[in-house]
Amino acid sequence: MVHNILYAQSGGVTAVINASACGVIETARRFPQKFGKVFAAQEGILGVLREQLYDLSVEDPAQIAMLRHTPGGAFGSCRMDIGSPDTHPEQYARLVDVFKAHDIGTFFYNGGGGSMLTAAKVARFARAHGLDLTVIGVPKTIDNDLSLTDTSPGFGSVAKYIATSVREVSLDLAAMCGTSTKVFILEVMGRHAGWLAAAAGLAFEGDDTPLLILMAEIEFEPQRFLAALHDKVAQHGWCVVVAAEGLMCNGQFCTLAAESEIFGHEQLGGLAPLLAKLTRDAGYKTHWAVSDYFQRSARHLSSRVDVEQAYACGAAAVSLAAKGKTDVMVAIRRTSDVPYLWTLDAVHLDQVADIELPVPAEYIRADGFGITQAARHYMLPLIQGEDSPPFRDGLPVFAKLKLQYTPAKLPPFEV
Amino acid sequence: MVHNILYAQSGGVTAVINASACGVIETARRFPQKFGKVFAAQEGILGVLREQLYDLSVEDPAQIAMLRHTPGGAFGSCRMDIGSPDTHPEQYARLVDVFKAHDIGTFFYNGGGGSMLTAAKVARFARAHGLDLTVIGVPKTIDNDLSLTDTSPGFGSVAKYIATSVREVSLDLAAMCGTSTKVFILEVMGRHAGWLAAAAGLAFEGDDTPLLILMAEIEFEPQRFLAALHDKVAQHGWCVVVAAEGLMCNGQFCTLAAESEIFGHEQLGGLAPLLAKLTRDAGYKTHWAVSDYFQRSARHLSSRVDVEQAYACGAAAVSLAAKGKTDVMVAIRRTSDVPYLWTLDAVHLDQVADIELPVPAEYIRADGFGITQAARHYMLPLIQGEDSPPFRDGLPVFAKLKLQYTPAKLPPFEV
Repeated sequence: MVHNILYAQSGGVTAVINASACGVIETARRFPQKFGKVFAAQEGILGVLREQLYDLSVEDPAQIAMLRHTPGGAFGSCRMDIGSPDTHPEQYARLVDVFKAHDIGTFFYNGGGGSMLTAAKVARFARAHGLDLTVIGVPKTIDNDLSLTDTSPGFGSVAKYIATSVREVSLDLAAMCGTSTKVFILEVMGRHAGWLAAAAGLAFEGDDTPLLILMAEIEFEPQRFLAALHDKVAQHGWCVVVAAEGLMCNGQFCTLAAESEIFGHEQLGGLAPLLAKLTRDAGYKTHWAVSDYFQRSARHLSSRVDVEQAYACGAAAVSLAAKGKTDVMVAIRRTSDVPYLWTLDAVHLDQVADIELPVPAEYIRADGFGITQAARHYMLPLIQGEDSPPFRDGLPVFAKLKLQYTPAKLPPFEV
Repeated sequence: MVHNILYAQSGGVTAVINASACGVIETARRFPQKFGKVFAAQEGILGVLREQLYDLSVEDPAQIAMLRHTPGGAFGSCRMDIGSPDTHPEQYARLVDVFKAHDIGTFFYNGGGGSMLTAAKVARFARAHGLDLTVIGVPKTIDNDLSLTDTSPGFGSVAKYIATSVREVSLDLAAMCGTSTKVFILEVMGRHAGWLAAAAGLAFEGDDTPLLILMAEIEFEPQRFLAALHDKVAQHGWCVVVAAEGLMCNGQFCTLAAESEIFGHEQLGGLAPLLAKLTRDAGYKTHWAVSDYFQRSARHLSSRVDVEQAYACGAAAVSLAAKGKTDVMVAIRRTSDVPYLWTLDAVHLDQVADIELPVPAEYIRADGFGITQAARHYMLPLIQGEDSPPFRDGLPVFAKLKLQYTPAKLPPFEV
């Protein structure tokens, strides 16, 4: 019996989430005896509730193939979770209506820990109500904080972007430090986990490098930081500081430490300018940068391993569904460090839903300002290989989809 | 009669200034009957005064070749100008001593308008004192504000980086705007000229795009900006704002408009957070980024045209010197737009020294928030082609020089 597929993207997008979409869509086509049409919800679960479903059968396969190298979220993503069946029964009733109206037999939800919670809720509801719905999670997050998977597609590319950019900028700083800037501060994403800051450690080899990493896992102590910075500048002439946006001091986000003793007065937000004030007050000419969305959309510098894993996770989700598996998330298993070998596996959605893992203690150098060799061994395989998108007329060319809704069959629904 | 060459880098470095160095060094080797050793001063004119000269004859030619794809300034750069012969006669006497001590017959100075003033001063002094010294300027600046040259090596690569990054991030924003961020603000370099902000215009085709450019050339008017932003968000659902750091309001840098009516209270510096406050107060969820040094060191995304021009300018400087030309800067002449064709020429140092050209009015759209087709025709050729550095183990590999001083022959000199 052939039913349709519904795929949706959720949470902050990445440089490779569309590669997972590509894996889902292209693989589904290989199982015509199992799957009918592939729909994509606009803006994740929101589009399901609103019955805004793109019919991907009208898309040019060449454009679908281009999703593999297109950053962003081609169908729109959302920062929204559904309620519980107890408090929001109308949402679940609506989901069932939409699934039935469009003969959805398989639901793929592509996201991080929060999105896996949404998928788990849908799966639980389906089981409790005897609904014949396959639910498979496809992992995605630049934060690398998903449990039970070697890494999350999205992280490797950001790690490569940050390590490359830091290596490049370090040459700029080395050239200018004699008469100008001595400290360069980069703020990277990471509210609760310092993985992206940690990735900067790959830019240099060895421990004795002109780099200080400020991870979200380590309480920020200004005096200890300035002492370490002083040592680095004395030794190398300059220093790069890479800080996770979620850096904490005195038990709260440094960026919220308004009117604090440390930073003096109210700020507009942004950790990098706060740290820059600190280092300037300490006498160092300082430049600072905030990568923000660039780090997660820089598809021009993606890791080939990351792209391959993202695509493979999408493809494996379809294979799992074809084999009758449900209520699981695709997970990456590392079978060898050197060479980096991995396979795909399935873990129950409940085991990964809403869990955020920090950088483990054994990956953080004793002084708290760097990474260990173990961290390097773990991360280095994830940034291997280049996978440039095609360029035309000097700029990368990305997929352009028609994004045509399948006709709605239900009355509108207010979310 | 064979004399030695002294090459030096000055001002803010770029992703391709070392390609010019490579052009100088490799070309000088082809004229053994004209030139002896090639020395490079550490940190520009400062290293000349200090007699800190690297002897490049000890370097591995393979590493010299790698300079072509190495960002930063391999010999160190400086933010320093020399005085005039009247007020600082000791500096000029010292320069002559150093040139004579190391048998320097040719001095190549690689920099922007300010650096060309330094070169011009040295040239004028040499002429006035009958010193047999050839002085050639090699153009370099990301700001694209040098006169009498089609462009400045360094600009094309930053323009490509900004246009690519904006195109990528626009897909992120398009995916998230439904439930999250609607405005993304990028602060780019450009104290006095808005060329880098203008380059963002290449990210999209046509006029009707979700992009507002804030160039240094156009006085910033908050209400007019917010009205334009409102229109963009209403039409597209989101908008990217790219602002030159030198944006002016009420006759001063916006970033210095402390306690102003516009921005409320004192800030730490940084235009992007100021603009983000404005757009958030107007009700838009906003993200912001500051590229800072990344934009000028992102060699992984350089324009091939830019790299070729940088190398060719270095090579041409040597050819000009070999032909007996002096007191000139190498300039790029555009001979055709499509296909982009260019040749190299020489302009007198006095014609380019200390001149900073803004973006011409005909390149700025009537509403002040975008670029014209003429600007597009001018800039698009400059970002053509990719020229990736080699990657090893996931990261770009750059030149590693020995940087060995030639023995000093003079007493120390305090600068």
